[in-house]
Amino acid sequence: MGDNLVTKILKSHLVEGELKIGEPIGIRIDQTLTQDSTGTMAYLQLEAMGIDRVKTKRSVAFIDHNMLQQGFENADDHKFIQTVASKYGVHFSKPGNGICHQVFLERFSTPGETLTGSDSHTPTAGGVGMLAMGAGGLDVALAMGGGAYYINTPKVCKINLVGKLKPMVAAKDIILEVLRKLTVKGGVNRVFEYAGMGIKTLSVPQRATITNMGAELGATTSIFPSDERTLEFFKAQGREEDWIEFMPDLDAVYDEEVTVNLDDLKPLAAKPHSPDNVEEISSIGKVSVDQVAIGSCTNSSYEDLMKVSKILKGKKVHPDVSLVIAPGSRQVMEMMARNGALADIISSGARVLENSCGPCIGMGQAPGTNGVSLRTFNRNFYGRSGTLSANVYLVSPETAAVSAIAGVLTDPTEINIDITVEMPKEFLIDDSMILAPAPVGTKVEVLRGPNIKPFPVNDKLGEVVEGKVLIKVEDNITTDHIMPSNSKLLPFRSNIPYLADFCFNTVDSDFPKRAKENNGGVIIAGNNYGQGSSREHAALAPLHLGIKAVIAKSFARIHKANLINNGIIPLEFENETNYDALDNLDKLVMENIQSALDNGIVKVKNVTKETEFNALVQLTEKEIAVIRAGGRLNYVKSQNK
Amino acid sequence: MGDNLVTKILKSHLVEGELKIGEPIGIRIDQTLTQDSTGTMAYLQLEAMGIDRVKTKRSVAFIDHNMLQQGFENADDHKFIQTVASKYGVHFSKPGNGICHQVFLERFSTPGETLTGSDSHTPTAGGVGMLAMGAGGLDVALAMGGGAYYINTPKVCKINLVGKLKPMVAAKDIILEVLRKLTVKGGVNRVFEYAGMGIKTLSVPQRATITNMGAELGATTSIFPSDERTLEFFKAQGREEDWIEFMPDLDAVYDEEVTVNLDDLKPLAAKPHSPDNVEEISSIGKVSVDQVAIGSCTNSSYEDLMKVSKILKGKKVHPDVSLVIAPGSRQVMEMMARNGALADIISSGARVLENSCGPCIGMGQAPGTNGVSLRTFNRNFYGRSGTLSANVYLVSPETAAVSAIAGVLTDPTEINIDITVEMPKEFLIDDSMILAPAPVGTKVEVLRGPNIKPFPVNDKLGEVVEGKVLIKVEDNITTDHIMPSNSKLLPFRSNIPYLADFCFNTVDSDFPKRAKENNGGVIIAGNNYGQGSSREHAALAPLHLGIKAVIAKSFARIHKANLINNGIIPLEFENETNYDALDNLDKLVMENIQSALDNGIVKVKNVTKETEFNALVQLTEKEIAVIRAGGRLNYVKSQNK
Repeated sequence: MGDNLVTKILKSHLVEGELKIGEPIGIRIDQTLTQDSTGTMAYLQLEAMGIDRVKTKRSVAFIDHNMLQQGFENADDHKFIQTVASKYGVHFSKPGNGICHQVFLERFSTPGETLTGSDSHTPTAGGVGMLAMGAGGLDVALAMGGGAYYINTPKVCKINLVGKLKPMVAAKDIILEVLRKLTVKGGVNRVFEYAGMGIKTLSVPQRATITNMGAELGATTSIFPSDERTLEFFKAQGREEDWIEFMPDLDAVYDEEVTVNLDDLKPLAAKPHSPDNVEEISSIGKVSVDQVAIGSCTNSSYEDLMKVSKILKGKKVHPDVSLVIAPGSRQVMEMMARNGALADIISSGARVLENSCGPCIGMGQAPGTNGVSLRTFNRNFYGRSGTLSANVYLVSPETAAVSAIAGVLTDPTEINIDITVEMPKEFLIDDSMILAPAPVGTKVEVLRGPNIKPFPVNDKLGEVVEGKVLIKVEDNITTDHIMPSNSKLLPFRSNIPYLADFCFNTVDSDFPKRAKENNGGVIIAGNNYGQGSSREHAALAPLHLGIKAVIAKSFARIHKANLINNGIIPLEFENETNYDALDNLDKLVMENIQSALDNGIVKVKNVTKETEFNALVQLTEKEIAVIRAGGRLNYVKSQNK
Repeated sequence: MGDNLVTKILKSHLVEGELKIGEPIGIRIDQTLTQDSTGTMAYLQLEAMGIDRVKTKRSVAFIDHNMLQQGFENADDHKFIQTVASKYGVHFSKPGNGICHQVFLERFSTPGETLTGSDSHTPTAGGVGMLAMGAGGLDVALAMGGGAYYINTPKVCKINLVGKLKPMVAAKDIILEVLRKLTVKGGVNRVFEYAGMGIKTLSVPQRATITNMGAELGATTSIFPSDERTLEFFKAQGREEDWIEFMPDLDAVYDEEVTVNLDDLKPLAAKPHSPDNVEEISSIGKVSVDQVAIGSCTNSSYEDLMKVSKILKGKKVHPDVSLVIAPGSRQVMEMMARNGALADIISSGARVLENSCGPCIGMGQAPGTNGVSLRTFNRNFYGRSGTLSANVYLVSPETAAVSAIAGVLTDPTEINIDITVEMPKEFLIDDSMILAPAPVGTKVEVLRGPNIKPFPVNDKLGEVVEGKVLIKVEDNITTDHIMPSNSKLLPFRSNIPYLADFCFNTVDSDFPKRAKENNGGVIIAGNNYGQGSSREHAALAPLHLGIKAVIAKSFARIHKANLINNGIIPLEFENETNYDALDNLDKLVMENIQSALDNGIVKVKNVTKETEFNALVQLTEKEIAVIRAGGRLNYVKSQNK
């Protein structure tokens, strides 16, 4: 019985625990990345750890989220990250250099290594055979400090790709198909390992689109082997020495298997408001389109944008459509500025935005009222575009470009045009916007603007947890629901007291007020609570508001880890029907919580309704210890004493 | 006694009044332009006039201000402007096509014609011999409706340019020198007409930089002749047929004359926080720089940005500097994308922003706390950058580019490099992003998002005006002080009730509250009140808050017109020392105001202090009639009855 890729990496990086499905393990982290919206907090936490210098092989701080810079907060945060990175031995990718995942893939990704990033789309680097996982900022800070990263040993699900994509059908359609099959909950406690003859037909950027958006499955991560196609990419990036062949054993075993036949695949779209609400474009019909947005870490590679330029060349964007295009990196943009493709894009009437995350994270380009927006992005959660009434469809770059010209959602296979893009023999390589850290950090002064506030730290767990139900939410609540991220709030990612006033804003804007009036309390949730972005702020804001526990039908992986890291107890209904009987402002009491955590079952008294139900403790011993300590930082400090 | 250019145009366009300095005249307007931040209001006013179709030769609606689009408001406003423009016969320049003044100069400017635009930098088109004036949105709406534009006959001041600029000294340095000599008040009731052998050395884009920033002198406008250099520009724009030679008579007389010797000129900077706070860069010294921003309607032409690209080529931006560059138009951007210059700019580490106004109007790129920002823009008013503690220097593109590399403010003449840029024989011409209006407007549905609120309309003037002093401000208060414009407020330009709560926000944030508590009142101001941007909102927000009169030492032209247009009485202290004796919340009463307006003097009783002083009525008969009617729209409607 041979090893699959995931098992190989886990084995070579295991520092704690045993590789049995569901069992907690600690793994050594080779590289880390942060972006600016989660990074400020991660580096504040790194500073709090009291080390001199990061202990990873390489850590990189990117600025890609908050680049509209509407107030001093953003430039201050960038300067803080630049100086703290220099001090602690972290590379700094300047604003303008590109989206973290795209730049990391181009310049830093390494087959067979591990990566944690404080961004949920960190799995992008899985496209070259890296085990790349999104994590909370604190987890990344701990990894920078040399600590292990803790997960439960995942199931490994083989996605067997057979056949070959038809022209105008894209890698995006593959991952949309997987989402259609498996849903946004389908990846929980799983890693998706791509295999089969079909993968040889996919370039590294195509593979990276798939691993990137694998995050929407709720998976721990996704991974491709490192093969000849990978070598081709590394050679063209001038990084042949970073390449290794990394393949599963011929007799590798998997826990599950799903087959996708590329021959049969047609252009797909994820309709509002979920990435798994997938349907064939030909069956959706010719929806009128107001906006088309191309870019994001999912679809902003040289290959993607060259295809777009070939579709747009000599054509004009429909008069009623605003087409915006944000290249993924300076490498992509400069190459296209040099070869005429950018000029073709401009000539079509497209608006070229900075190479950054941009509208994917609500930084500008909010659609109009009831606007229909086609986006090559990875998420179309309600409100994420910045416009609550907007209808966002997730599509491939091909579909986006063709539809921008037509003015209606259009199946790109209707268009007969050759958009083949060869992998360049040499990418344009210029790392001058990636600043190396100071050789000696002690002399570097960390610059700290007035927007950078201390982060909340929890107290040790007592014997009783009690509080009122402050909000009861449905299934599939995202971290975007819990802590909205938009252009108005993003500048305050290092200012939790300010942010907390917008917690659950799109669901129930009275929540922060209610939480404050009742001195905190408990959140009741449905299945897959906390899916989506890895943002730790979805735990930090509730912590600031005094949330003591979340009782849910089930949790999304990263958010559950963030709750634990901050000492908020995640509990799961033993019997889901108990969910139905709970109402806002019911007073809940959990006595003898310390021993209940050890026993695995917490009795929850509903004092208001004079009832009682059981909640399960799905936590490792270490996680329980972290919760007892009042969060991970407290725990690590107590361990170091 | 021959005519100068200004007199020629005024004579050929005079429809009311007599050409005597200071006397009111009405002139026929050939063309109008609007941008999106003032345009929504202008088109609401156009609709209120009850006409079917604009009566100008050509009117153009541009989208260039609010392009970050952080909420539905902006896309809705754009769609409103697109549809209302189509209905009423106005050309629509799509977002992404460029900055109104740059695109207008390239594609619509016409020597010898008149233009009003709802933007204070409308004088840009004076660079080709057009009498181009910034005006309030209502004035522009009235001109679209075929009405005259009313000004007081200005003095014509000849700016005699002699000699030739040295390498690395720029047109920007010429206008900075004029500002240094004449100050931000130096242009009041004046048009600056450029003449002398020096003008032959200046291209149209260079001339347009000068007329553009002439707005900072407080001038009615600035103008250059239309000569061989102008023809060269029109030929290259494929618009030879729009060109006429337009020169002053050989014996033309002027009211005033100032000489600037280009040979002697050195690179200059306007230091914080006023465009006339000008000093030679060599004497300011090597100030450390955090940000450099190149673009805006002042310095974003092909010629400017090609020079910048030549400076940046092969160099790298200093690690501690964020360099942002926003081309002025799609024409500029596509040409530079085609000829490799954009690639050189990207290669240097510059961030390329959309071709729009961008950071010049506070739409993004706010500097960090205490940040030093060099900008090729036209205004460095306190707070305009979006960061109150920032220090903004206004400089030429040459100075900006050289300093971005050095990391400190640097005199570009220190650098020995040839950056000569020839005027292209043919600009790249593609007007596909300028949508022609519907041939028949009646069938066009105007789309109106929920952010578009009705605008406030004043009441008829009674016999007594009374109210408390709600704020007392100093000299040179700008419309940016009165009604701040930043990325957070710009989306609400069609929502006066919302905006009004931010009136005078950077000066005294309690003003709106105080105004509401006291049911409105009076504003007391120093000299040159209302300088800067033409924004009508600096009158509409006070109107919404119940402001009845402004008593100032003196007014800036456009703002005074906006007050009158909205029925707010602008009065001037007969004796400036009376200003000193006034305090917040003093109750003022002006009895028999109707006859006082006719008599030219209003007695102002200070009931609180039991004193009295005189205020002068510097208004034409027509203006008095407008104030009596409660504003221009009421007046026009009453005339039409």
